[in-house]
Amino acid sequence: MQRTSLKSDPCPVARALDSIGDWWSLLIIRDAFDGVRRFGDFQRSLGVAKNILTVRLRRLVTDGILEHTNSREGNAQEYVLTAKGKGLFPVIVGLRQWGESHFYGQKERHSVLVDRDQNRPVRRLEVLSRDGRILRAEDTFVRKIGS
Amino acid sequence: MQRTSLKSDPCPVARALDSIGDWWSLLIIRDAFDGVRRFGDFQRSLGVAKNILTVRLRRLVTDGILEHTNSREGNAQEYVLTAKGKGLFPVIVGLRQWGESHFYGQKERHSVLVDRDQNRPVRRLEVLSRDGRILRAEDTFVRKIGS
Repeated sequence: MQRTSLKSDPCPVARALDSIGDWWSLLIIRDAFDGVRRFGDFQRSLGVAKNILTVRLRRLVTDGILEHTNSREGNAQEYVLTAKGKGLFPVIVGLRQWGESHFYGQKERHSVLVDRDQNRPVRRLEVLSRDGRILRAEDTFVRKIGS
Repeated sequence: MQRTSLKSDPCPVARALDSIGDWWSLLIIRDAFDGVRRFGDFQRSLGVAKNILTVRLRRLVTDGILEHTNSREGNAQEYVLTAKGKGLFPVIVGLRQWGESHFYGQKERHSVLVDRDQNRPVRRLEVLSRDGRILRAEDTFVRKIGS
């Protein structure tokens, strides 16, 4: 199937998804946030075929989300998040919290994102108005270009 | 390609992506937040083939993210977000804001998410600690099960 490109779409959600809108890419980014850096470690963590991982990593580098660096020992290439890649932190946290709320049984345990300083789970993500009110989707609208 | 299932993965990000980790699903959800309800309107908005849209809508209903309702006129089926679906609001806003930051030229215009009450753009999403400090990814860690 030929994938439509969303690169010139006027909607920022569409352009964002054009770059990262697939399962493996988002899981690679999640692992990078968790400190995974090497090809073999991504492969083990994700249980993904080498060819798929190669293509996805290359795309993430081309798109400026990951960059190559040399390991401290200098004998292995590593992948680390760029500033642009780190900008996805709220998205990954949002996916995590939504997953926590809806995909676990009451007694089923799951991993938790914790604030290093206080060793306590982070706050629930909220969309806020400029003056700090919590906004639901129905409290907002998308102002399109030209409208 | 046989897709690995992440349904029983211990990571909440993985379980979340198992349900919505594809481009079309997330764009359908975006459109639903924007008030799109009918099959034909999703199709026009997304420029997607009917068979793909049918499969994705069915999956989103099965997963409890969208539900069927009858239109006010009673002659058309409509799709609306459930409470679970609405829980994805911060994820869509995070994708939007990341897209706004990284995929537009300086003078290029894009749509903006606006607070109805004040007619001003919403605040930038931030991950916060329990006591309200802004957390970067490096200020957090994932506490895995059993650790």
